[in-house]
Amino acid sequence: MTAVMTAVPSEPAKAYEALCERLKEISSLNGISGLLDWDEMVMMPPGAAASRGSQKAVLAGVLYDKETDPQLGALLDSLKAAPPGTLDEVQAAVVRDAAREYVKRTALPKELAQRIAKLKSEAYGAWVKARTESDFSVFAPFLKQWIEISKEKAKLIDPTKPVYDVLLDDYEKGATSARLDEVFTQVREGLVPLIAAIKSRGRRIESGWLNGGEYDTEKQAELCKKKDNVVEGLTGAIHETGHALYEQGRNLEYDGLPVNSALSMGVHESQSLLWERMVGLSRPFAAYLLPMLQERFPESFGSVTAEQLYESENVIQEPSLIRVEADEVTYPLHIILRYELEKGLLEGEVEVEDVPRLWNERMGSYLGATPPNDATGCLQDIHWSMGALGYFPTYTLGAMYATQIYAAAKKEIPDLEDKIRAGEFKPLKSWLNDKIHKLGSLHKSGDELMIAATGAPLEPSVFLDYLRDKYNDLYKL
Amino acid sequence: MTAVMTAVPSEPAKAYEALCERLKEISSLNGISGLLDWDEMVMMPPGAAASRGSQKAVLAGVLYDKETDPQLGALLDSLKAAPPGTLDEVQAAVVRDAAREYVKRTALPKELAQRIAKLKSEAYGAWVKARTESDFSVFAPFLKQWIEISKEKAKLIDPTKPVYDVLLDDYEKGATSARLDEVFTQVREGLVPLIAAIKSRGRRIESGWLNGGEYDTEKQAELCKKKDNVVEGLTGAIHETGHALYEQGRNLEYDGLPVNSALSMGVHESQSLLWERMVGLSRPFAAYLLPMLQERFPESFGSVTAEQLYESENVIQEPSLIRVEADEVTYPLHIILRYELEKGLLEGEVEVEDVPRLWNERMGSYLGATPPNDATGCLQDIHWSMGALGYFPTYTLGAMYATQIYAAAKKEIPDLEDKIRAGEFKPLKSWLNDKIHKLGSLHKSGDELMIAATGAPLEPSVFLDYLRDKYNDLYKL
Repeated sequence: MTAVMTAVPSEPAKAYEALCERLKEISSLNGISGLLDWDEMVMMPPGAAASRGSQKAVLAGVLYDKETDPQLGALLDSLKAAPPGTLDEVQAAVVRDAAREYVKRTALPKELAQRIAKLKSEAYGAWVKARTESDFSVFAPFLKQWIEISKEKAKLIDPTKPVYDVLLDDYEKGATSARLDEVFTQVREGLVPLIAAIKSRGRRIESGWLNGGEYDTEKQAELCKKKDNVVEGLTGAIHETGHALYEQGRNLEYDGLPVNSALSMGVHESQSLLWERMVGLSRPFAAYLLPMLQERFPESFGSVTAEQLYESENVIQEPSLIRVEADEVTYPLHIILRYELEKGLLEGEVEVEDVPRLWNERMGSYLGATPPNDATGCLQDIHWSMGALGYFPTYTLGAMYATQIYAAAKKEIPDLEDKIRAGEFKPLKSWLNDKIHKLGSLHKSGDELMIAATGAPLEPSVFLDYLRDKYNDLYKL
Repeated sequence: MTAVMTAVPSEPAKAYEALCERLKEISSLNGISGLLDWDEMVMMPPGAAASRGSQKAVLAGVLYDKETDPQLGALLDSLKAAPPGTLDEVQAAVVRDAAREYVKRTALPKELAQRIAKLKSEAYGAWVKARTESDFSVFAPFLKQWIEISKEKAKLIDPTKPVYDVLLDDYEKGATSARLDEVFTQVREGLVPLIAAIKSRGRRIESGWLNGGEYDTEKQAELCKKKDNVVEGLTGAIHETGHALYEQGRNLEYDGLPVNSALSMGVHESQSLLWERMVGLSRPFAAYLLPMLQERFPESFGSVTAEQLYESENVIQEPSLIRVEADEVTYPLHIILRYELEKGLLEGEVEVEDVPRLWNERMGSYLGATPPNDATGCLQDIHWSMGALGYFPTYTLGAMYATQIYAAAKKEIPDLEDKIRAGEFKPLKSWLNDKIHKLGSLHKSGDELMIAATGAPLEPSVFLDYLRDKYNDLYKL
């Protein structure tokens, strides 16, 4: 450790330069940390586990020292105090996000950080046990600890804000629970009757021929890997490609700076869901995909029409109790239920003991389905065991951003759906590069990004109209 | 950077503990650096080159700060001043090697380190060009700079020692040029007549049937990978397995400490060459290997005897001009030639301009062969272009250590060669684990390790006797 405390440059341009150098260092170290994790999961022989553990611990210590260096804080203070107009839009965004991150890193005393680390490993074990035994009481004490420790943490980071908002900010920058309440209420009120209407029609489409049957996995992989047209194949590959395009589309000029990071988990998810749902599960894409399926799997697809493929891909099944198996119409209600409960827990309006009962009641009223036990109910997800309170909303925000972004793209790109039918995905990719990917974290929230890219903040009616139009048509409601 | 300069613990045990913590941190960061390099060569897509470059630069900076931290120096000073007997053998070795490393890291001013880095990349390019054009004059100015910069560096590290010894220490800890002169003179004087005698017999064995012919590469790979008997297959796989066994055989109790590192490049090479030459190219191994070759390649090996396989594996070809193609009898003279020249250059007794002439003269007198041009003469090796002066001797030291270690193993392991013939390699591996691998850097030089493992320092006659016995027999000299 070189111990010299150098003076902060008085010239803002110099101070900004010094800031960027430090931020890029931190970004590089985070990149290394990512490689260590990836290598551990994919390449590393298990005998190297102890050595990799030491490497990760040392690197975490180095990162902590860099991220909490008082010199970094002094640079940020000087730049925040610079007269308005000194920094351009990008520079201001860098300072804004770096300052927020610095506050988060320096707010927690070491003792609290250690308690959090300890709870993380204990709570995970307890959750696994609780789910295996389908016994919420095994996990309850740890969820209680997470609630208390999360409140403590949030108050240290920003005592002026609601606890939920401070936690949410880690996953969905700039969002608030007041805004989520507003958005999610509309979504819930729109979806409950839609789901009831679909249910009343019964299952209109036989889905067995698509979901059952056996398909050679090598042929499937080959289909997913055909990359010259950006997306082809099955929904998983399309979804992950959407995430990758977001990461790859960033502006390299700002590489290593916070402004070049993903804006939020919700925006990230919007890029995967846009390609998966708006493109991959659309009528024009079905027309494009069908001949490729027929060529590879003639027995299954030889006599199928594009409309039949589209209908089968979008069949609404019996409402699932399990979030990760839910379709796009019921999925948001799984999220809203979790959001309501975790917010209630943090605000003291819900007791941990009441979680299983409230969960089951709301599953009944939102989806008309009641879990037979906690394992398929309030214990199904890993998130709370890791202390990830405030994460769930990003899934549905992502789905909503996706419909609104796609609606704007359709207005601006002539004949977009004809292009998709013809396998021309580049115009959409370029449009997303310009409107979303390149901007990274320039805007301070998902709403601001929506205004810049689509002309309006997140608007639940766009999402609801998309679902209504699609399923009214499919189900002849 | 936390700027607090904490006091050195007055209790030696505490100071040693604090030292180990720092050394393990440095070791972990070096391990991370190794992963970044490996991943770059093996896994990384080329588009990530710029980002990986930044990561490596940042990590190098972090490592430099840790390795040159004055606190580390203060801990080492306090431990070097501890009363005799305070530290046990292992602890003393840790302090000895860490202190030497600290001197090396802190001796060079930043400006010199930058000049070295610059020269490294320029000299490499010049060497590639010089070799392609077979024109030593293109490389000569850079070799001159390496000589000057190496002298400058050596004087900063230890002005009391000969320049060559300081450089050699990076590769062969504890060795000196005086000792190399002594050893290499005996080797040279022993080998020149042996080579002449072999040459006078002409090529006794037709090697075409083994070196020519086509062998299915998958069957070869499968043969090399059969691992339950430690070594099986071709010499490359056996050689690298020897290196791996040395690394894997270290004492995990001292993981991350200098005492657990390889003692030297020479000792490392001894472990690969022992398995390759003493085992893999031996008569008993030929008897063990033959049936496996016959099973896989019946056309080539169906009517071959074990003695024929052994003879063919050990045929001495026309002396090669190229080091990496040389056999075990001529190889040491390639090394001695390079050692004499690089030592002469550093001591001012050889001028850079004279290198091509001296090279060709000595190739003639040592091996009876004269390179037709510089590309196949003094420009053939990459080492000098990277400033690796003092590296070459380790190859032949390794070959010599290997024969002496194997001779000791043969004395101590009953019926070792019968065991090898039966494919039982574990007794030899266990013996090497105990005598060499586990010791790491406990001893301060290769000679000291030889004393501990074989009862005597490196003894050239052991190496010469091995070669004479083997080739007198093979060539009926």
